[in-house]
Amino acid sequence: MRLSTNIVQTRKNSPADEEVKNAQLLIRAGYIHKEMAGVYDYLPLGLRVIENIKQIVREEMNGVGGHEMLMSSLQRKDVWLKTDRWSDKNVDVWFKSQLANGSEVGLGWSHEEPITDMMTAKINSYRDLPVYVYQFQNKLRNELRAKSGIMRGREFLMKDLYSYSVDEEAHQKFYDEVTAAYLRVFDRLGIGEQTFLTFASGGAFTQFSHEFQTICDAGEDIIYLSRDKQVAVNKEVLTDEVLEQLELERDSLEELKAAEVGNIFSFGTTKSEEFGLTFTDDSGESRHVTLGSYGIGITRLVGVITELMADDKGLVWPANIAPAQVHLVPIGDSGAEQAEELYQTLRDKGVEVLYDDRDSSPGAKLADADLIGVPLRVVASNKTAEAGKLELTNRADGEQTFVSVEQLFDQLD
Amino acid sequence: MRLSTNIVQTRKNSPADEEVKNAQLLIRAGYIHKEMAGVYDYLPLGLRVIENIKQIVREEMNGVGGHEMLMSSLQRKDVWLKTDRWSDKNVDVWFKSQLANGSEVGLGWSHEEPITDMMTAKINSYRDLPVYVYQFQNKLRNELRAKSGIMRGREFLMKDLYSYSVDEEAHQKFYDEVTAAYLRVFDRLGIGEQTFLTFASGGAFTQFSHEFQTICDAGEDIIYLSRDKQVAVNKEVLTDEVLEQLELERDSLEELKAAEVGNIFSFGTTKSEEFGLTFTDDSGESRHVTLGSYGIGITRLVGVITELMADDKGLVWPANIAPAQVHLVPIGDSGAEQAEELYQTLRDKGVEVLYDDRDSSPGAKLADADLIGVPLRVVASNKTAEAGKLELTNRADGEQTFVSVEQLFDQLD
Repeated sequence: MRLSTNIVQTRKNSPADEEVKNAQLLIRAGYIHKEMAGVYDYLPLGLRVIENIKQIVREEMNGVGGHEMLMSSLQRKDVWLKTDRWSDKNVDVWFKSQLANGSEVGLGWSHEEPITDMMTAKINSYRDLPVYVYQFQNKLRNELRAKSGIMRGREFLMKDLYSYSVDEEAHQKFYDEVTAAYLRVFDRLGIGEQTFLTFASGGAFTQFSHEFQTICDAGEDIIYLSRDKQVAVNKEVLTDEVLEQLELERDSLEELKAAEVGNIFSFGTTKSEEFGLTFTDDSGESRHVTLGSYGIGITRLVGVITELMADDKGLVWPANIAPAQVHLVPIGDSGAEQAEELYQTLRDKGVEVLYDDRDSSPGAKLADADLIGVPLRVVASNKTAEAGKLELTNRADGEQTFVSVEQLFDQLD
Repeated sequence: MRLSTNIVQTRKNSPADEEVKNAQLLIRAGYIHKEMAGVYDYLPLGLRVIENIKQIVREEMNGVGGHEMLMSSLQRKDVWLKTDRWSDKNVDVWFKSQLANGSEVGLGWSHEEPITDMMTAKINSYRDLPVYVYQFQNKLRNELRAKSGIMRGREFLMKDLYSYSVDEEAHQKFYDEVTAAYLRVFDRLGIGEQTFLTFASGGAFTQFSHEFQTICDAGEDIIYLSRDKQVAVNKEVLTDEVLEQLELERDSLEELKAAEVGNIFSFGTTKSEEFGLTFTDDSGESRHVTLGSYGIGITRLVGVITELMADDKGLVWPANIAPAQVHLVPIGDSGAEQAEELYQTLRDKGVEVLYDDRDSSPGAKLADADLIGVPLRVVASNKTAEAGKLELTNRADGEQTFVSVEQLFDQLD
């Protein structure tokens, strides 16, 4: 896209009201706009990163047999009364409102109850199982403090998947498949090496839930990591008994700050019992459905990846989630001609390009390219035009080479 | 997708609490699930139709230079106080809630105010203009009555585009381009012939806004259509004076029920004045920005297309928005073998297939295929397997032919 179309507007200074790097940089680079603490608009570049992350998650969720759907934000009170989670005492993050007729309505902070309620209408027989459905949902949570930028929002995007299985064995098999799929997601996002399966507190049914924690100074959790075993324990459940159970030695664990980028949870049949969600098995017996839920924080991931990869100059995106592959900077008249031609060629090849055709100084353009953080910066100047080459800079490591158009294409394949 | 994965569950009877065809059929066919009046979940098939419609709209909005973004649902009170539209007296569809600290917050029923507020931080100079941005937004409107199914929701998906231009002339040029793009959208959705540019009430700045009204018995509007001139007038502005102005004769107009599928609106500089949204022009003068807004009701379109195209047997989708291209029904053992092979071949070619590999009767499968409404139904039976052919039925016109696999591929290209 041509930057002259005002697709992105950067700013030199960090906003005064943001304490953390992710929000400061994403705002400066024109990826997000702040509406209020913990509530951000996703500007065109930001939305592209989000959609790229969603697509990776989508492919992996489809890979384990998930079907994408989309539930409503408005939720019924009676559904949440069934599990005693309507009360603000039991759930302290509700946004509630009223219908025009005066009755109360909730704004979705989770969808476990509404979807389980829906399934009571969909599931009757063992033939209706399993059901694996997921959504990318705009969750609303009334957090008292929202100081971590896009890493903890009052409004944020989450992928939530729900599984309904005939029994614990079938459930556990799917649960393990999702665990493996989650690890692939984080690998593909470039944070696999810093992300660890973490034992965290369970609920009525299980002793533990599993979190996926990414080591990150801006994270709000403390984990204890065993590098040997590649697992971690959330501080909230770290007791001698738990360590013994998991066969971990306290001395071998590293205490680290981390951000929870995913969470998976077994409910057993507790929720099904609350909703009366039963099915008739193949011998004609009525049984309760076994339920699991599986979350990934999509916008939190944008924040975590920003925190981990950005440098002094600005954002640095892995190629597979970057808003474009090439940031093209023309300098001088011949450079502009060369750039214009290259822009058309790259577009024809389907390469996403940020083309800085604005009427501003070379210094400002180069600084913006660093700030925006697209993987490959290409400068077309009078010098490169004369040489029939291009100046190619790798944003991540700063390596600079002079390449032909064909060599540039090779890097993009 | 294999229907044995429970991607869709149909029901024989219409829900008792739905009065209109679109909701009845979409629920029966497993496209949507009702949470409460005017609030629906989009199940996997429904979401696919929505995403296909969004993609057509996206392509046309990108074609006129729009950049996609996504704003928040949570909105600030102070932003809406500036235009006196926070008050429930002036806007009667607000859902409001409170932050944990007690201050009021709104849920987005429109985004004109927040985006114009955002632009005060983004637009300073004529170089920052024009800005054309759009989003697919989950709008929340607290309608007292919501009886039209998915055609009027308390929660619904809308594409809203906003234009910020240097002056009225630049604005008008873009407004005309969007008008043409909207007509292309409705053509591509297969409702072009029933959809008319319609003069409707304007606001502080213009006498008229323009609606795009689709003739539809389930619509909530009354329009007066001139087939000669291919324009219509909304009943709300039909006066002798208006008819004279538009050079229309009352006797030549047809009174019709219609559904508003799009609406475009010129604000002039009124909103910019309310927000102090100015820019410095190329002579150094400060001027107000000229604003337009342009909506398309995405989920309403799903309802309208359902109303217009469905028949006694169920849904009928145009190929470019259908949730799949082929509905594959195996009958008998040899038919099942033939179907299984064809399913793999079609998947390898990237064709979306609903493959009814469930253990149910041929009659139930054929009825479900009609209800779900995918364009091409393919039956693989023992008879077709023996003949080395397939039974192909066009859902829209019922035409049935026996074709080879190659002939089927030809129909899919």
